[in-house]
Amino acid sequence: MELGPPGGAGPAEPGPRLRGLRGDDRAASAAWLSEASAGRRAPSVAAVLPAGGSGERMGVPTPKQFCPVLERPLISYTLQALERVCWIKDIVVAVTGENMEVMKGIVQRYQHKRISLVEAGVTRHRSIFNGLKALAEDQPNSKLCRPEVVIIHDAVRPFVEEDVLLKVAIAAKEHGAAGAIRPLVSTVISPSADGCLDHSLERTSHRASEMPQAFLFDVIYEAYQQCSDYDLEFGTECLQLALKYCHTKAKLVEGSPDLWKVTYKRDLYAAESIIKERISQQICILMDAKEDEEHVGRCLEEMLKKELNHVKVTSGALCHAGRDLQQIILEQCYNFVCVNVMTSDFEETRKLLNALEESNLSILYPVVVISVHFLDYKLVPFGQKMEHLMQIKEFAKEVKKRNILLCGLLIYYPQISFELISATNPPLFAEEDWP
Amino acid sequence: MELGPPGGAGPAEPGPRLRGLRGDDRAASAAWLSEASAGRRAPSVAAVLPAGGSGERMGVPTPKQFCPVLERPLISYTLQALERVCWIKDIVVAVTGENMEVMKGIVQRYQHKRISLVEAGVTRHRSIFNGLKALAEDQPNSKLCRPEVVIIHDAVRPFVEEDVLLKVAIAAKEHGAAGAIRPLVSTVISPSADGCLDHSLERTSHRASEMPQAFLFDVIYEAYQQCSDYDLEFGTECLQLALKYCHTKAKLVEGSPDLWKVTYKRDLYAAESIIKERISQQICILMDAKEDEEHVGRCLEEMLKKELNHVKVTSGALCHAGRDLQQIILEQCYNFVCVNVMTSDFEETRKLLNALEESNLSILYPVVVISVHFLDYKLVPFGQKMEHLMQIKEFAKEVKKRNILLCGLLIYYPQISFELISATNPPLFAEEDWP
Repeated sequence: MELGPPGGAGPAEPGPRLRGLRGDDRAASAAWLSEASAGRRAPSVAAVLPAGGSGERMGVPTPKQFCPVLERPLISYTLQALERVCWIKDIVVAVTGENMEVMKGIVQRYQHKRISLVEAGVTRHRSIFNGLKALAEDQPNSKLCRPEVVIIHDAVRPFVEEDVLLKVAIAAKEHGAAGAIRPLVSTVISPSADGCLDHSLERTSHRASEMPQAFLFDVIYEAYQQCSDYDLEFGTECLQLALKYCHTKAKLVEGSPDLWKVTYKRDLYAAESIIKERISQQICILMDAKEDEEHVGRCLEEMLKKELNHVKVTSGALCHAGRDLQQIILEQCYNFVCVNVMTSDFEETRKLLNALEESNLSILYPVVVISVHFLDYKLVPFGQKMEHLMQIKEFAKEVKKRNILLCGLLIYYPQISFELISATNPPLFAEEDWP
Repeated sequence: MELGPPGGAGPAEPGPRLRGLRGDDRAASAAWLSEASAGRRAPSVAAVLPAGGSGERMGVPTPKQFCPVLERPLISYTLQALERVCWIKDIVVAVTGENMEVMKGIVQRYQHKRISLVEAGVTRHRSIFNGLKALAEDQPNSKLCRPEVVIIHDAVRPFVEEDVLLKVAIAAKEHGAAGAIRPLVSTVISPSADGCLDHSLERTSHRASEMPQAFLFDVIYEAYQQCSDYDLEFGTECLQLALKYCHTKAKLVEGSPDLWKVTYKRDLYAAESIIKERISQQICILMDAKEDEEHVGRCLEEMLKKELNHVKVTSGALCHAGRDLQQIILEQCYNFVCVNVMTSDFEETRKLLNALEESNLSILYPVVVISVHFLDYKLVPFGQKMEHLMQIKEFAKEVKKRNILLCGLLIYYPQISFELISATNPPLFAEEDWP
């Protein structure tokens, strides 16, 4: 069944994650992407995500791919990571019948795109096979196209980045199969039948096989069609199937530590902390091009840089900064400070709120917007502007319905000493607390 | 060098962690422990902790064993896990010269006991060897004794529990060597020279070798004395050394997921969350045996059980509940509620504070104590008892110096309807916020 519009919407810019690529990788990627954007013979790529697991190792009743991480199911992060990659045309997710409705709900709630759901099999290999069958042309009523390259990924590896997806896809096109690997964390041993050590493997000559993996569709589909019931029941390694049944030696690609699989409860904790850090460590300061605002904005930037990893500043009236802002929203910044010096109106803040509402960013998490107004107490008596400023309460109520937390901060200062330090503590009025 | 008093202080009760053992394990453990407590031919056990690593995989400049987790270095948690096991007589930690002072500071600050520090080697095996040399009798000026069994553990596996330490120690006494193992999370593959897949290993017939491991001291010391420079430089597996040089086949013991090694930054996040959960999910309610207090205590217990994993109640005046309380403090409960019905004095709370101060529990984290006083507003006018109750501010200031956060909560209620719900929000006075 097809949920959401199919992919193929015009090729987009490579995501920010691609910037990490170097040298040959970058050249190959550039060629791939330019082919893709020229629409010539762009290799078509789909992804299959087996998500039928029961999560027994987690020690919780919910299958781990559906476990909430910051109140959002884990699989939704993984889908987001895949759908942000514009050259992946279709994403086929295999879920068990009993979780089909849950999964449909997730796709709808988080507005995932290019997703097709198929029934999972009783083992991981059978689920992948079902996903591949749905992509093969011979399925009736399917809107899916048989791709040239198929990426196989795990629902429980939410932090996959575009560069490694691209690397395995390119390597698969060249070699027929490719998979991400990581160094072993522990030494691997082989026990004897009596539960004693038989021998230990040399750690440096072995690797952990991780996901994503990619294949020429014909190779992996052929391998699955040929493989035995035993393989489908007890096998663990898709690369091995390609080797065994199609004599295709997979290219191995070194992946980053981000590729780790959420397996135990502690991994959920780690995932939560990583996501929290990503959300909380990025802030965007918006200000007008006026001299005063630039000054305040730069002071704020300096201060925030001591606390946060990513502080971005865009200046110029919002109508001019629009393109910058769109990019910042695309990179999933959830925190904004809108600086207003010597003005108590909300023109700029309102423009920001509009842009945020259009972006749907706040579907995933609350977006925090702080509208800061600096007023010289010598020039503006306290009472005079309060009434005007209290409008923000109305805005805050309104945008909260759309998961945007708006907070107003009025700072009275003597213009003669332009200091932020003590003025910000405590805020004189705040409609919403920082979440 | 020897820090803190040597072990051997009379045998204690088995820690609470031992309760998980079943059947044969329990019988063997009981025998072991009864021998230990009879002081007859109790097998002497020491532990060696290599802690010379640089933590390059973590991507942070601080070696991972010294990374702060809730502001306390990771290695301190591991030392705590080991020193709580009364039958481990000595703990030898191998640290690099440049970190020696840092390590001494940690031992002193967190009052670790039975610790000896030795200089680490340039590799893990050389560090372990240095630890073993310090335990061998032929070292001059050493207060350490050559043990019968030596446990080797990692500084970066902080959640090791007594049961697995006991299992490997018992198995080592019987087999000469033993090590904890875990199922593989990822399939292990062997790459060919050209970076392609050569073959993949069957996951079910291999295991990850984890820590702790244990050995008859003579076996592992002999193995280290015989092994080659190549082994000391590039080897990873102590069990393999015992096999290769002493023909001792290690017994493999299935460990719990807790044994995982803090390797990447995400593991620090996970460790932090686990420790937070342990601290925050346990609360002890203390009350007098009076009918009213029992009732309130049980109501509170029911409510808290919906939120927390471990809620303990001890009733009876503190002088009688003393033994219970000691056990609860030993099990590292950091949250206490002291229930007082119709009394505004602090007799019971003061006894609890004394017991906490004696225990040194608050060296590691702040201990939170809430002294709740229920007063019927029909019987006691508000103003009348306030002065008396304000004494708590003085107590709070005093105990805060010893890292105990005391909070007073006065609840006025109509005795006719004994409801807690709205009364607790907000507290009428509170010296300290919940941390």
